[in-house]
Amino acid sequence: MTSTPHPDTVSYSYLGPAGTFTEAALKQVPEAVGARWKSVNNVGEALDDVTSGRSVAAMIAIENSIDGGVSVTQDALTNTPNLRILGEYLVPVNFVLVARPGTTLADVTTVNAHPVAYGQTRRWIDAQLPQHGYIPATSNVAAAASLLDNSIADAAVAPPGITEHYPLEVLAENIANNQNSVTRFVLVSSNTELPEPTGADKTSVIVELPDNAPGRLLEMLEQFATRGVNMSLIESRPIGDELGRYRFVIDLEGHILDERVADALLGLKRFSPNVIFLGSYPRADKLATTVTPRYGNDVFVEARDWLRAITTNEPSATREP
Amino acid sequence: MTSTPHPDTVSYSYLGPAGTFTEAALKQVPEAVGARWKSVNNVGEALDDVTSGRSVAAMIAIENSIDGGVSVTQDALTNTPNLRILGEYLVPVNFVLVARPGTTLADVTTVNAHPVAYGQTRRWIDAQLPQHGYIPATSNVAAAASLLDNSIADAAVAPPGITEHYPLEVLAENIANNQNSVTRFVLVSSNTELPEPTGADKTSVIVELPDNAPGRLLEMLEQFATRGVNMSLIESRPIGDELGRYRFVIDLEGHILDERVADALLGLKRFSPNVIFLGSYPRADKLATTVTPRYGNDVFVEARDWLRAITTNEPSATREP
Amino acid sequence: MTSTPHPDTVSYSYLGPAGTFTEAALKQVPEAVGARWKSVNNVGEALDDVTSGRSVAAMIAIENSIDGGVSVTQDALTNTPNLRILGEYLVPVNFVLVARPGTTLADVTTVNAHPVAYGQTRRWIDAQLPQHGYIPATSNVAAAASLLDNSIADAAVAPPGITEHYPLEVLAENIANNQNSVTRFVLVSSNTELPEPTGADKTSVIVELPDNAPGRLLEMLEQFATRGVNMSLIESRPIGDELGRYRFVIDLEGHILDERVADALLGLKRFSPNVIFLGSYPRADKLATTVTPRYGNDVFVEARDWLRAITTNEPSATREP
Amino acid sequence: MTSTPHPDTVSYSYLGPAGTFTEAALKQVPEAVGARWKSVNNVGEALDDVTSGRSVAAMIAIENSIDGGVSVTQDALTNTPNLRILGEYLVPVNFVLVARPGTTLADVTTVNAHPVAYGQTRRWIDAQLPQHGYIPATSNVAAAASLLDNSIADAAVAPPGITEHYPLEVLAENIANNQNSVTRFVLVSSNTELPEPTGADKTSVIVELPDNAPGRLLEMLEQFATRGVNMSLIESRPIGDELGRYRFVIDLEGHILDERVADALLGLKRFSPNVIFLGSYPRADKLATTVTPRYGNDVFVEARDWLRAITTNEPSATREP
Repeated sequence: MTSTPHPDTVSYSYLGPAGTFTEAALKQVPEAVGARWKSVNNVGEALDDVTSGRSVAAMIAIENSIDGGVSVTQDALTNTPNLRILGEYLVPVNFVLVARPGTTLADVTTVNAHPVAYGQTRRWIDAQLPQHGYIPATSNVAAAASLLDNSIADAAVAPPGITEHYPLEVLAENIANNQNSVTRFVLVSSNTELPEPTGADKTSVIVELPDNAPGRLLEMLEQFATRGVNMSLIESRPIGDELGRYRFVIDLEGHILDERVADALLGLKRFSPNVIFLGSYPRADKLATTVTPRYGNDVFVEARDWLRAITTNEPSATREP
Repeated sequence: MTSTPHPDTVSYSYLGPAGTFTEAALKQVPEAVGARWKSVNNVGEALDDVTSGRSVAAMIAIENSIDGGVSVTQDALTNTPNLRILGEYLVPVNFVLVARPGTTLADVTTVNAHPVAYGQTRRWIDAQLPQHGYIPATSNVAAAASLLDNSIADAAVAPPGITEHYPLEVLAENIANNQNSVTRFVLVSSNTELPEPTGADKTSVIVELPDNAPGRLLEMLEQFATRGVNMSLIESRPIGDELGRYRFVIDLEGHILDERVADALLGLKRFSPNVIFLGSYPRADKLATTVTPRYGNDVFVEARDWLRAITTNEPSATREP
Repeated sequence: MTSTPHPDTVSYSYLGPAGTFTEAALKQVPEAVGARWKSVNNVGEALDDVTSGRSVAAMIAIENSIDGGVSVTQDALTNTPNLRILGEYLVPVNFVLVARPGTTLADVTTVNAHPVAYGQTRRWIDAQLPQHGYIPATSNVAAAASLLDNSIADAAVAPPGITEHYPLEVLAENIANNQNSVTRFVLVSSNTELPEPTGADKTSVIVELPDNAPGRLLEMLEQFATRGVNMSLIESRPIGDELGRYRFVIDLEGHILDERVADALLGLKRFSPNVIFLGSYPRADKLATTVTPRYGNDVFVEARDWLRAITTNEPSATREP
Repeated sequence: MTSTPHPDTVSYSYLGPAGTFTEAALKQVPEAVGARWKSVNNVGEALDDVTSGRSVAAMIAIENSIDGGVSVTQDALTNTPNLRILGEYLVPVNFVLVARPGTTLADVTTVNAHPVAYGQTRRWIDAQLPQHGYIPATSNVAAAASLLDNSIADAAVAPPGITEHYPLEVLAENIANNQNSVTRFVLVSSNTELPEPTGADKTSVIVELPDNAPGRLLEMLEQFATRGVNMSLIESRPIGDELGRYRFVIDLEGHILDERVADALLGLKRFSPNVIFLGSYPRADKLATTVTPRYGNDVFVEARDWLRAITTNEPSATREP
């Protein structure tokens, strides 16, 4: 992809409004510069935009270093056909406490916040405002915006930079419980063209276990282990029909065009009644995947040549020289 | 445990107020009959009550068949020392739409609901009230109660039975997306006495992987597989220090006093820098665990006798007759 | 293969002379009827005949149900390039004690026997002839023949049917320690054309471990286990350069043209610095291989189609319908 | 053990006569100095001496670096109850060609040799004496001795040092095919007292698979892998009742009093219907076993303490500090 100017109709969807962490993730995408950015209210809307063609891609949060996988995203990716992840983007997550101009910390009795943000800043808020009341909001930006809209709240938890968009004042910065929190976003599209392998790639799949027989998860993991494919993420999600039945959201190190990953996916596909391939894409951290020599592409090619020589009865195929 | 009358001071904490699914779970506990039931606002408060001794036990939601593990509970159990799960309880989850008396479905423009309940009833609400606005609530009961408290909402999503506690009318029943949704609750205590094995038990642990080396999860699962111990739940949770480091919340079939489970826990403890034992307790579904004969208690005892005869040089220890 | 009449020059080698168990195995080969049968003295000569083209095939013993693998055969197959096993043949092994006409059991003071035959009949001989002396022979038939050639022995251990070839008398029948002993023979050729799969096939390979790192053998076996391929034989043989380094002689259930076997051989080839493919051929016992559905040929083909659709960007390749 | 002078009745059995490699192994045993050395004809006799009490121990060959395991020894150890290996000893194996005084290499037309020795020197003999005839002998020393006893042979293959015992001349030295061949011997006793762990030990066992189900061997190896126990030897031997049923002769690195080995043996015993413990003893090469920290004795002890604290309800047992 190149970042030539987009016609007006090219649109990217993101969880808005302007000022969210999702917008910060979208700012990292060179191809999105100059395109129309379409603010949506939730993951479902974002993916609808993609599948309907209203947007070429959508930016959605998939995992947080503190809270773990974003279940609603994982389930939406499971249930929406024909999507592909084009890339991943990391955004450090921290928060500020904002208020209407003139308000001091001592004035604050009620705080408006998205429940996740509230949880992630609870330690600071409980210490500084032990008597506060809490009003939940539908998004981090909505919490801030509500202050200008007759809310009974005196302050809101919001992303840094919120004051670029709203006439509010920052009462306190860096109020997150954990100062190193990072959220991982993915850019999702219906474009099924595979990006080229870069040597620093991830492959995302969602895999259903065939049944509840003991050892099934072990069997699934052996598909990766026997091909030297490492996982950077594994999360279970309920299939939903009954307690105790799971599918797994998995990120593998490597690209589907890497031989060892392709072979592992073949094994996975034979094992599982339902494998969803979500894409191979460059890693956000650009860390090259370490491949031990025995799982290199050449080793796979040589083995296939050896087998083909035997099965097609080429001369001298019986053994290695 | 027997259900003799409790002195007034014996207290059980639960996510309240009266009418919640958590209260429905607590109603299943014979020992709690006649005790004081203490309504709390969140899992943290419930566990605080237990560790401080204010309550003998707390009922908390740990998993839903649709939404998966309750992260906040899993993380709280990880971070609160000296807790034990005494039992598990299943509550079918469905919802009703309630309103102030006299309101009809056609009158409803704004709905108040806890975000999880909203998600689980969205399909019905979107179909019946395509133009509705949404206000988030902090709990299912709070959503209903708000209708009596000057809320701008016209209706609320609430648990069945809410009308026993509040003068509201039911506009629609069974509005959940999934009619078979079940939530699993656990009763948590600081009492570390082990319940007797019943033959239909679960054992819950939280296990940290020693490092990110490839194949670590596989190694962990082999601890169970080589002792014939099945898992009924495995969920990953971020350790939180950086992306890509996980601990696992695991439910095993069997009791720590079952030889095969004890041996698997020994293997797990040797493998992991941090294993939290959360308890062995009777399964809610009372399904007896199937143990293949080679993993029976007697097999473990015989093997130990055989080894002891060799290492202590008992006569004729060299081999089986 | 068909059993059309052979020209005089078509020759089959076997460990002779006439009357040996190896000859009995060769009699089971329809294609050998009418060809010249060339008696040789040892496995090395037999394989030399094959590689030089003097014989189209050689019959050699590879395993006995009591004594295990025939090491000298296993090592010869390892060290002779470009050989293929065309088929396997089972011969029940029992022995008679023979003597010159007129000799009675009471007359016997010295017994001539091949060392293996002597070992397999020792129990009977020790019981009946407690004072006997022993002279080793180079083959079972040579032991018998020696009686007619000025040997100081009075009796010889020989295969049943020896009296069809030599004017000797049977002093005792069925003198083997084990009455159910069976020897497995293989017909070896330099013809590398693969026989068609019959559904009841074996595949023989010799595999060197890459190094002595712990767990290497386990890794090798996982190549089979993850493809549902069962082994009917595994024997270790020293590589010979130092103590503790081994190669493995392995018989797999199935044919190299079975998808699961081919895939396992690919994994094996990637794992091992040296894999010798010795052939896929019909089992002597004609027992059809049981293949669980998940390892059927169709499952492999479907998985490849699925992967190809993704990597070549066919429409609708993202997921299963 | 100390090497104080033995009373005349203390006897060690070995495959004789004087001059064999087995005698060379016995010379390495300090405790055997000054005892009576009893020459026997085969492994069965040697083990009979031990079980009957005629000898305190017997030296027997168990493996050769070129020929592999000595099947007859492995089977005898399987079938003779109550034996223990006390130690292992390595003897370099090479051969000389000897003849009656005055014979030259050019005079030699017939060679007497034990079949194994003949096989191991065949390359040299075929090159130097392409027209030679061969007479098999029952032992390496018997081959040499026969030259003084009217044999028609002109030369014999014998161990170096044979001329210390017989008035013969060496025609050629170092005639073995492989100049680095080593035979491993074990000293076997009915004394079941365990030697102390030295840090450089081996443990020998013979293990029967429970049945022929696919993956059984893999399961057996997992018992070792999950405890970090390495194998230095694994050989299959037919159980003997039918083709395709095997037991395994296994040498493990470590001592039964090492926690990880003891735990692996427990797992093995639970897995297998028949485990024969043959002993833990110092390695001949005195190479200390490398134990990764996670399999150290302390790790096993700590895990047991942790489990015991939970199952006996010691205070603060729920988790690690």
